[in-house]
Amino acid sequence: MHLITAEPTDTLSDRRIDRVRTLIERFADLTGPGTGAGVTRLAYSALERRAHAEFATYMADLGLRVRTDAAGNTIAELPGSDPGLPALGTGSHLDSVPNGGAFDGVAGVVAAMEAARSLVAKATPMRHTIRFVAFAAEEGARFGQACTGSRIVAGLTEFKSLQELQDKDGISVADAMATINIDPEHVSDAIWSPNDWAGFIELHIEQGSILTDAAMPVGVVDLISGSTRIKIDISGRASHTGGTPMHLRADALAASAQIVLAAEDLAKDSRHHGTRITVGKLDVHPGSITTIPGHCQLHIDVRDIDNDRQRFSTTELIAAAHEIAAMRGVKISVEVLADASPVVLPVTIRNAITSSAAHLGLEYRVMPSGASHDTQMINHVCPGGMIFVPSRNHGISHSPDELSDFDDLAVGIELLIASLRELDTPSPNISDN
Amino acid sequence: MHLITAEPTDTLSDRRIDRVRTLIERFADLTGPGTGAGVTRLAYSALERRAHAEFATYMADLGLRVRTDAAGNTIAELPGSDPGLPALGTGSHLDSVPNGGAFDGVAGVVAAMEAARSLVAKATPMRHTIRFVAFAAEEGARFGQACTGSRIVAGLTEFKSLQELQDKDGISVADAMATINIDPEHVSDAIWSPNDWAGFIELHIEQGSILTDAAMPVGVVDLISGSTRIKIDISGRASHTGGTPMHLRADALAASAQIVLAAEDLAKDSRHHGTRITVGKLDVHPGSITTIPGHCQLHIDVRDIDNDRQRFSTTELIAAAHEIAAMRGVKISVEVLADASPVVLPVTIRNAITSSAAHLGLEYRVMPSGASHDTQMINHVCPGGMIFVPSRNHGISHSPDELSDFDDLAVGIELLIASLRELDTPSPNISDN
Repeated sequence: MHLITAEPTDTLSDRRIDRVRTLIERFADLTGPGTGAGVTRLAYSALERRAHAEFATYMADLGLRVRTDAAGNTIAELPGSDPGLPALGTGSHLDSVPNGGAFDGVAGVVAAMEAARSLVAKATPMRHTIRFVAFAAEEGARFGQACTGSRIVAGLTEFKSLQELQDKDGISVADAMATINIDPEHVSDAIWSPNDWAGFIELHIEQGSILTDAAMPVGVVDLISGSTRIKIDISGRASHTGGTPMHLRADALAASAQIVLAAEDLAKDSRHHGTRITVGKLDVHPGSITTIPGHCQLHIDVRDIDNDRQRFSTTELIAAAHEIAAMRGVKISVEVLADASPVVLPVTIRNAITSSAAHLGLEYRVMPSGASHDTQMINHVCPGGMIFVPSRNHGISHSPDELSDFDDLAVGIELLIASLRELDTPSPNISDN
Repeated sequence: MHLITAEPTDTLSDRRIDRVRTLIERFADLTGPGTGAGVTRLAYSALERRAHAEFATYMADLGLRVRTDAAGNTIAELPGSDPGLPALGTGSHLDSVPNGGAFDGVAGVVAAMEAARSLVAKATPMRHTIRFVAFAAEEGARFGQACTGSRIVAGLTEFKSLQELQDKDGISVADAMATINIDPEHVSDAIWSPNDWAGFIELHIEQGSILTDAAMPVGVVDLISGSTRIKIDISGRASHTGGTPMHLRADALAASAQIVLAAEDLAKDSRHHGTRITVGKLDVHPGSITTIPGHCQLHIDVRDIDNDRQRFSTTELIAAAHEIAAMRGVKISVEVLADASPVVLPVTIRNAITSSAAHLGLEYRVMPSGASHDTQMINHVCPGGMIFVPSRNHGISHSPDELSDFDDLAVGIELLIASLRELDTPSPNISDN
């Protein structure tokens, strides 16, 4: 463990809080017209590109070299004093779910922008090159698969699967990329080499209420939940609501309702304590008040920090859905859209964050992440760590009501900068290549 | 009872079946582009107007006087030999539900077209003026309220309520009418006077499987089910599917699923035997795989042939929904969109139909109608009756799979013409004014 020089107090000042507020608000303005409350800036959309361009301009103005890679990730580089060392990285994503909040992802990108500003201003450069990253397409809301930009750099997604995954309008990831001038056939050019990276830290809002309830200023993530995403199609018989007696029905919505409640029961069962199962999307066809629904499609998300329990819960849910379908005489088909395992983050980066917090006199909580994050993928390339800042408003996220305090964010950024400096200091705790 | 002259056998010939097939197919072609399978020709749409124009042209070519009234109903008139007598009428509607079938409503309009052709061809005119009617906007699928065109002529719907009822895009009935050049402010001009009408017979497909199962060629309707239509809004809390533990959720979809199953249980309860309750439409917001649904809207249809039981079932369902919402900590609001009582059709018209069937040597089943029909409204103006022709394919209706046989339709048309002739014959059974 190394003593580090505390940042001058003015970096925790009102000026940093003001800059953070300005940046968060500027990104929040980049939302789809007519999409309702909150922020709608979907993966691989033109609006996501505008947000990346804002990030790139800001970083170029600081004098950093900026490039967008073959996956649509934008990377700004601050060269280190020792060109032989692999890079340290920080960043998060700029896309959102439909009607999401202003902080999810953006907080970590703004933290990277503020960290870059702080590090550029210092007389003494860092030994390691520092890379500030805005990942593309982290949210799985559009295509079902989360963390597409970071999956690609980790070599976990290839061109073929980008052609297969589609949004609700039948547009594939590959087609969406082509529309915004990213050539999906060359995504493998974006793959990061483990030899080129020493470590990565992502700052993110908690998206839960643990830090606020415990009055903790920051969280240090040890585990990231896995997520299995499935699509279930139920086909019954569309028919007249007046002319069809109850006993002659094959109502796809009634079967779907039973699956929704079975999913909830399963997650609340004590054998699955900690599992979260959600039916976030249910489409009902034809959707007329005088027609019995003939077809429904459910999108289900199964999350867990336990690898085996995640798969066991999914298997049990699929079995329950088949049983419900058989009892009701409706047809069922199940498709696994995406499947990411829970990840244990390495102790090396976590120690650098916790020792920096101790030096800054910050209390912290070591905690799991319920949500998926780009760091889950980056951890396949190099050791990854995460700093959580508190979510207010009962921890609500993926909602216009998502809220974090700008001064909490400034504290988290302070810790991020200190942790990067800690990792930059020669140490037996971390291997540099 | 009067003996009537049987129609010449050639009217039951292949030529009638061919004409019916041609007309049914011509109307089926008038469907929205890109709307999927079946027929989508919504109430007060431009496509519905095109169907009315086809009807008007056909009737004008037969030499009938044709007009479209202030409600958008199209009425063709064949003058009777006795101008002092009130009119007899027949007809049905030309609009459809989304992705509906080719026969619902259209069968009765085609029957009116074929009856007109038959009656025009006779040397001896009818004593009563015969009016052939294509009603507008019978399906409640678009605006929630069924039988709008026939409600207006029966004086049961006024301009004000046409301004209030809206489709899913927020377009009111009044606005939709204005778009297709019908002035909704003058709908009261369309009201029918009871003094001007002696009786009305609507031919319709059964939309159930009773006739097919019993191998009966025709049905004669004695009761028409009522329908109470309600909209329930459920507001929970949209939040992240990973970050939100099960016990901190207010999931609007899970609450809605419980309401869907409560509705089904209620209808299947033996105390409600014969009640049909359907949740035909369920909209889930924001509809993202990684967001717990924050808001849902359910459209529910409660049908019964018993007046009290229909209202009691609705009240019980609303109470159950409130209880579910309270237990789950979600907000609920309930709106009654439409409420039509069951109707007992008068014996006078029914007797004319059954005696005509007997004379034609047709077996018939006296039966209730599960679906609503324009005749339910017209019965407020003058005695109404209905002839059902068999639905094939398990009685499926409001579906692309809706099917009736063209020769069954020709038989039903034969009975319709005979019944109109029976009503035209001076008789102690029916009052002419």
